[in-house]
Amino acid sequence: MRTLKTFASDNNSGTHPDILRAINLCNSGHAIGYGDDQYTELALKKFKEHFGEEIDLYFVYGGTGANVLGLKAITQSYNSIICAETAHINVDECGAPEKFTGCKIQTVPSENGKILPSQIDPLLHGFGFPHQSQPKVISITQPTELGTVYSIEEIKDIAELAHKHGLLLHMDGARISNAAAYLKANLRDITVNAGVDVLSFGGTKNGMMFGEAVVFFDKILSIDFKYIRKQGMQLHSKMRFISAQFEAMLSNNLWLRNAQRSNDLAQILAKEIIKIPAIKLSQPVQINAVFSIIPKEIIEPLQQEYFFYVWDENKNEVRWMTSFDTEEKDIFKFVNTLKKYLP
Amino acid sequence: MRTLKTFASDNNSGTHPDILRAINLCNSGHAIGYGDDQYTELALKKFKEHFGEEIDLYFVYGGTGANVLGLKAITQSYNSIICAETAHINVDECGAPEKFTGCKIQTVPSENGKILPSQIDPLLHGFGFPHQSQPKVISITQPTELGTVYSIEEIKDIAELAHKHGLLLHMDGARISNAAAYLKANLRDITVNAGVDVLSFGGTKNGMMFGEAVVFFDKILSIDFKYIRKQGMQLHSKMRFISAQFEAMLSNNLWLRNAQRSNDLAQILAKEIIKIPAIKLSQPVQINAVFSIIPKEIIEPLQQEYFFYVWDENKNEVRWMTSFDTEEKDIFKFVNTLKKYLP
Amino acid sequence: MRTLKTFASDNNSGTHPDILRAINLCNSGHAIGYGDDQYTELALKKFKEHFGEEIDLYFVYGGTGANVLGLKAITQSYNSIICAETAHINVDECGAPEKFTGCKIQTVPSENGKILPSQIDPLLHGFGFPHQSQPKVISITQPTELGTVYSIEEIKDIAELAHKHGLLLHMDGARISNAAAYLKANLRDITVNAGVDVLSFGGTKNGMMFGEAVVFFDKILSIDFKYIRKQGMQLHSKMRFISAQFEAMLSNNLWLRNAQRSNDLAQILAKEIIKIPAIKLSQPVQINAVFSIIPKEIIEPLQQEYFFYVWDENKNEVRWMTSFDTEEKDIFKFVNTLKKYLP
Amino acid sequence: MRTLKTFASDNNSGTHPDILRAINLCNSGHAIGYGDDQYTELALKKFKEHFGEEIDLYFVYGGTGANVLGLKAITQSYNSIICAETAHINVDECGAPEKFTGCKIQTVPSENGKILPSQIDPLLHGFGFPHQSQPKVISITQPTELGTVYSIEEIKDIAELAHKHGLLLHMDGARISNAAAYLKANLRDITVNAGVDVLSFGGTKNGMMFGEAVVFFDKILSIDFKYIRKQGMQLHSKMRFISAQFEAMLSNNLWLRNAQRSNDLAQILAKEIIKIPAIKLSQPVQINAVFSIIPKEIIEPLQQEYFFYVWDENKNEVRWMTSFDTEEKDIFKFVNTLKKYLP
Repeated sequence: MRTLKTFASDNNSGTHPDILRAINLCNSGHAIGYGDDQYTELALKKFKEHFGEEIDLYFVYGGTGANVLGLKAITQSYNSIICAETAHINVDECGAPEKFTGCKIQTVPSENGKILPSQIDPLLHGFGFPHQSQPKVISITQPTELGTVYSIEEIKDIAELAHKHGLLLHMDGARISNAAAYLKANLRDITVNAGVDVLSFGGTKNGMMFGEAVVFFDKILSIDFKYIRKQGMQLHSKMRFISAQFEAMLSNNLWLRNAQRSNDLAQILAKEIIKIPAIKLSQPVQINAVFSIIPKEIIEPLQQEYFFYVWDENKNEVRWMTSFDTEEKDIFKFVNTLKKYLP
Repeated sequence: MRTLKTFASDNNSGTHPDILRAINLCNSGHAIGYGDDQYTELALKKFKEHFGEEIDLYFVYGGTGANVLGLKAITQSYNSIICAETAHINVDECGAPEKFTGCKIQTVPSENGKILPSQIDPLLHGFGFPHQSQPKVISITQPTELGTVYSIEEIKDIAELAHKHGLLLHMDGARISNAAAYLKANLRDITVNAGVDVLSFGGTKNGMMFGEAVVFFDKILSIDFKYIRKQGMQLHSKMRFISAQFEAMLSNNLWLRNAQRSNDLAQILAKEIIKIPAIKLSQPVQINAVFSIIPKEIIEPLQQEYFFYVWDENKNEVRWMTSFDTEEKDIFKFVNTLKKYLP
Repeated sequence: MRTLKTFASDNNSGTHPDILRAINLCNSGHAIGYGDDQYTELALKKFKEHFGEEIDLYFVYGGTGANVLGLKAITQSYNSIICAETAHINVDECGAPEKFTGCKIQTVPSENGKILPSQIDPLLHGFGFPHQSQPKVISITQPTELGTVYSIEEIKDIAELAHKHGLLLHMDGARISNAAAYLKANLRDITVNAGVDVLSFGGTKNGMMFGEAVVFFDKILSIDFKYIRKQGMQLHSKMRFISAQFEAMLSNNLWLRNAQRSNDLAQILAKEIIKIPAIKLSQPVQINAVFSIIPKEIIEPLQQEYFFYVWDENKNEVRWMTSFDTEEKDIFKFVNTLKKYLP
Repeated sequence: MRTLKTFASDNNSGTHPDILRAINLCNSGHAIGYGDDQYTELALKKFKEHFGEEIDLYFVYGGTGANVLGLKAITQSYNSIICAETAHINVDECGAPEKFTGCKIQTVPSENGKILPSQIDPLLHGFGFPHQSQPKVISITQPTELGTVYSIEEIKDIAELAHKHGLLLHMDGARISNAAAYLKANLRDITVNAGVDVLSFGGTKNGMMFGEAVVFFDKILSIDFKYIRKQGMQLHSKMRFISAQFEAMLSNNLWLRNAQRSNDLAQILAKEIIKIPAIKLSQPVQINAVFSIIPKEIIEPLQQEYFFYVWDENKNEVRWMTSFDTEEKDIFKFVNTLKKYLP
C-alpha cells in the first residue's frame, strides 16, 4: 500500500492515533443506536465546554451533509443563501444544497475566498417581493477555500449585517480548528461570540475517520433537526463511533494541536516555496494550504509522483495542503522532487 | 460504560474484531480521497468475486442513503416505487425516499413483510396515463423487516413480473447476509441470478462500524450514480475506511460467519421463548430476529433492563434481535430476566 | 366542432355564460399584474362574504396546484399527509404532492371515498420519533372522488381528531359547491365552522374557464404563501381574469345554482339507470356523479359515442358525471344510446 | 375600473379582441379534457406551420411553468443551467427552477441581458468530476430582460458551443414574437434553425389571457414531458381555452402584428424620451421596452399616476413597456405627465 505523504488534501491523511484509540476503546459491548448512548453524552459535554451550555448538537457523516442539513434547518425553499463564489456549498457539493433545500445560492465574487459586507449588502433587497427568492442566510467558510482566515471583527461585521436584515449567519467550519489556531482564539470567540448562528464543525479533515457536527447556537433553530438529519440520510446507527472520536478530538486540545501542526508545516512548505523564483504564492499562507502559481510544464509530471489538485487551470494555480501527520521530512522530500522538474 | 449485550437491534452491537483490525491496518500513510485508492480497489475485487465481474459498485455511509440513492438512480420524480407497507423505505426513513426521489411510495399490505406478485400486479396499471405516478420499481427487503426470508423462487417471480412490465427490482439488503445464511445460498444466486437489478448491501448491521454498498447489476443503471452519491451527501472523503471494512467482511467468509452466528443465536433464543407459555412467537424465526407477543405489563420493566423496540403496540408485539457478538450466556441471562417479570 | 354533451367529467363542460360575460367585461384597459387590481379586490370581498373576514385568499391556476401548494404551506418535508386511498392527491396528481412538499402520503383504505377517525387514529403515532415521517395534515375531499358527501358532523369529528394531535385539516374542495348543495349548507358551515384549516375551493369544474382558490382560515398558516405560490408556478400575471370569474361565481348564487343543477341532473340520470336491470349503481348518488357497474361488453362501444372513464376495470365500474350545462334531453339521449348496446 | 394604459409591463394589458373572440367561440358544448380535443389539434397544426412538423408541443399555464418544466425535461438534479445574471429564471421566479429541477443555476454577468460564448466557455469544465454540478443547459432569453435582441448569428454561436460540449440550448421566449418582429425573421429561423433545442413560447405578454407553450425540437427530449407537466401542476383540464387562443394567435399573423405594434410604439416613446435632456436611455430600444435613467425625485410621484417598475435602484433606472394595445395618444399623455414632474 502507498504510504507516501501527499499534499493533495488534508483528507488524504488517515486517522490520528488518539482518535483511533478512542474508536478501539469504545468498541466494547452494546450501545443503544442513533445517539442515545453514553459516548454521545460525553461528546456533547465536551462540545459544551467549548461552545457553551446553550448549544444544540448533532453529528452527521460528512461535511456536505453538515452544511446542507444545517442550511435546510434554517431555510424554506423560497429562500436564498448568500455565499462566496468559491464556497464549498457553491462549487464542491454537486448542487446538494439546491437539491435538498430548494433554495437559490446567490454568489458574491471573491479573490481570496472572503466576502465583505459591502458586497453582500446590495443583495439584501426584494424582501416581500414574491418574484424573488427571499434572502435568509449568509454562509461563510472559515477558513476559506483559499486558505484565508476571517478575523473576528470581519465575522462580526457580517453577522451584524445579517441580523440587521433578519438573516442568519451560517459558518462552514470544515477546517475551523485551523482558523482558530491561526487566530489564536478559542472556538467560542470565532463562532457564537462573533455572531454565528449555525456551524458545521469539521472533524474529518483534522484527523477523524468520519463524522462532522452541526452546532446550533439557538435551540429555536434546531427544533426539528432530528427529522431533517434522518430524512437527510445522515443519522448514523452506531453513533458511538462518531461520538467517541469527537470526545477525543475535543480532549487534551487535540483539535488545536492537530490544526497547529498542519498550519506550522504549511509555513515551512511556504518558506521553501518562496525560495524558488519560478513559483509564486498566490494567496497568503494562514492555515494548512499553500496556493502557488507554478510553471505549467511541471504540473503533470509532479502530479505523477505527488497527486494534487490544480485550482485554476487558466492561471496554473495549484493547491498543496499539509495535514496533522505531515512531517518536515515529507516537505523537504516533496520540495526536492518539485525542484527536479523545474527547468 | 454499559457493556451489557442487548437485544434491541443488531446495530447496537459494535464492530467485529476482524473489521476493526482492517481499519487499524489501513490507517497508514496517505490515500487519495473519495475512493481512488488501493483499499477501494481491493474491496471492489472482493465484491466481484461474490457478485460477478459486471457489477458497478458504490460505497455510501448508511442504509437509508444506500436505499434512497439506489432508488434515485433508477427513477424519475414522476415514478412510483412499490413496496411492502412494512418496508424500511416506507416506515423507517422519515420520508427520505419521497424527499430525495420525488417519487410516490405505493404500498402493499403484508403480514410477514413479504409481498406477492398477485398483490403487486393490480398496481401495475395506468402506464402512459399522465395523471398517475408511473410504476417503475418494485422494492423488496431481503430478509424482511419481520425476519422472514424470500425464497429464490419468490424473488424470481417478482423479478419476472417487474421486468415484464418494464419495471426494475430493487432489493434492500441491509441484512442480506442473514438471508443468505438462512437460504444456504450464495450472494449471487439470491440477487442478480434471481433478477435483482439494484441491491443495497448491508455492512453495519453485520459487524461493520459504518458503510453500506449500492450494487448495480447493469452498468447502464448507474451511469450517473457518482453525481447522485455526491449530491446525496453520501460520498466519504476518507473512503479507505469503508473499503477496508468491506474487504475484510467479504474475506474468509466473515460476512457469512457473522450472519450464521446471529441467526443461530436467534434460534436458541426462540427455543427458550417457546417454552414460556405466556409468550407467543408472532413470526417464524428465520434470521436473527425474534418477534413475540408478550404480556403488556412486563414490557416496560423489561425495557428498563434490556432496551428493545415494541413493534406493534396494539398487539403487544415486540422484536428481539441477536447480533454477531451475541453469546449463549447473554441469551440465558436475558431469558432469566424476562422470566423474573412474568406473573 | 363536437358539441355533444358528454358524461365523462364536469371539466368537459365549457364556461358558464355569466362567467364568460365577466371575463369579457373585465377585458378593458390595463390592470396591474399579479393580483394588485380592483377585480381581485372585489373577488376577495365576495369570498369574505361567504367565508368570513379572517380568511387569507390566493388564486391559482388549477386544482392540483391548489392542493399541492396549500399542503406545502402547512408542512415541512419530514411530515406525512393522511388521506383516503382514493384521494385526488394520492392517485390523480402524478406524485405532485410528494415532489413539491417532500412529504409522505399516508393512505387509508376507503370504499366510498370517505375516511373515518377510527381509521386515522392508528396512524397518529411515532410523534417525536425521528425515523418516521411526522403526521401533520389530514386531507379530505369534499365531496369525495366517489361522489359521496361528508356530513358536517363527520368533518367535525375528523377536525377534532386532527387538532387534538396538533395536525391540521385540509379540504380538497374541487367540487365543494356540489357538496354544499347536497347538504343544503352554506360554505362557511362545511369548512371553517366544521374545523377545516385550509381549503382548495374549486372553480373550474363548476363552470369557470380556469382558476382555483386556496383559502386559509388562519392567517398564521399563509404567512409565506405568496412565495410558495410563485415558486410553485401558480401566480398568474393577468390575475384579473381569474378574479373576475370568481367574483361572478360567488355573486347571485351562481356557484350554488350551477352545483344544484348538475346535482339534480345526476339524480335524473340515476333514476333512469336504476330502471335498467343490467346496471347497478355502485355508490349513492349525492352530487353530480353516477357510479355504476355495467356489462363489460358495452363499455367500449358506448365510449366510442360518449367518452367516459372506467373507474375500476376489475369491477367494470364506470363513472358518469353531469355538469352545470347538462340538460334533461342530453340524459335521455345518452340513456337511449346506452340501451342500444345492452343485450 | 381603471382603464388607463400603463407602461408597467405588457402583462398589464388585457386580452386581444381576436383572442377573446376565439375563446368565446370555442365555448360551445363539451370537449374532452386535458388536450384531447379538436381545438388543441388545430393549435398544434398552426405551431407546426411555424416551427416544422417535427416539434413536440405542450401547453402550460404560465411563463415560469414553461421555463421550469422545459428545463426539468432536459436535466437531472445534478446538472447546472447556465444563464445571464439578469435572466428571468434567475431573478424573477422565486427559485422555482432550483426547487423543481434541483439544478444549480450558474450565472454569467451581463450588462445588456445577453451572454457571450466567451463568457460561457470558462464554465464548461469539471465534466465527469462528481463534486461539481454537471453543466447541461445554456438558457438564453430572447429578447432579453433588458429589451435587447440576440442576432441569429449570436444564437448560433451559443448553440454551437452548447452542442460541442453535449449541452442543450434552452430559450426563454416569453416575448419571442417581439424579437422576431425586430429581426424581421420567422419563428423557425430564430429558434430551431439557430440551434435551439427547447423553447418557452410566450402567449400572455403578447395578448393572450393565459397560456404558454413548451416547444421541443427533438422528440427524444420530451419523451416523458406529459408526466412532468402534470406533476408540475401545469396541465389544464379545460385545455381548449388555451388551445383556441394559440390557434388565433398564430393565425393571420396576429402574433407578429401584436409584437410589431408594441415594438413600434416603444420606438415612439423612445423618440419622445430622448428629447428630454434630464433623461437618458440606458439600453438600446429594440423591442417593446424602454429603459431609462431618470431623476430620482420624479420616480415616486410619477409612479402614483402611472405604476411602473424601478429596474435598478442604485442607478435610478426604470423600465417602461408598451403592449399590443398601446396607442400613440397614451404615449403622449404619459410623456406629458412625466414632463410635469421634471424640474
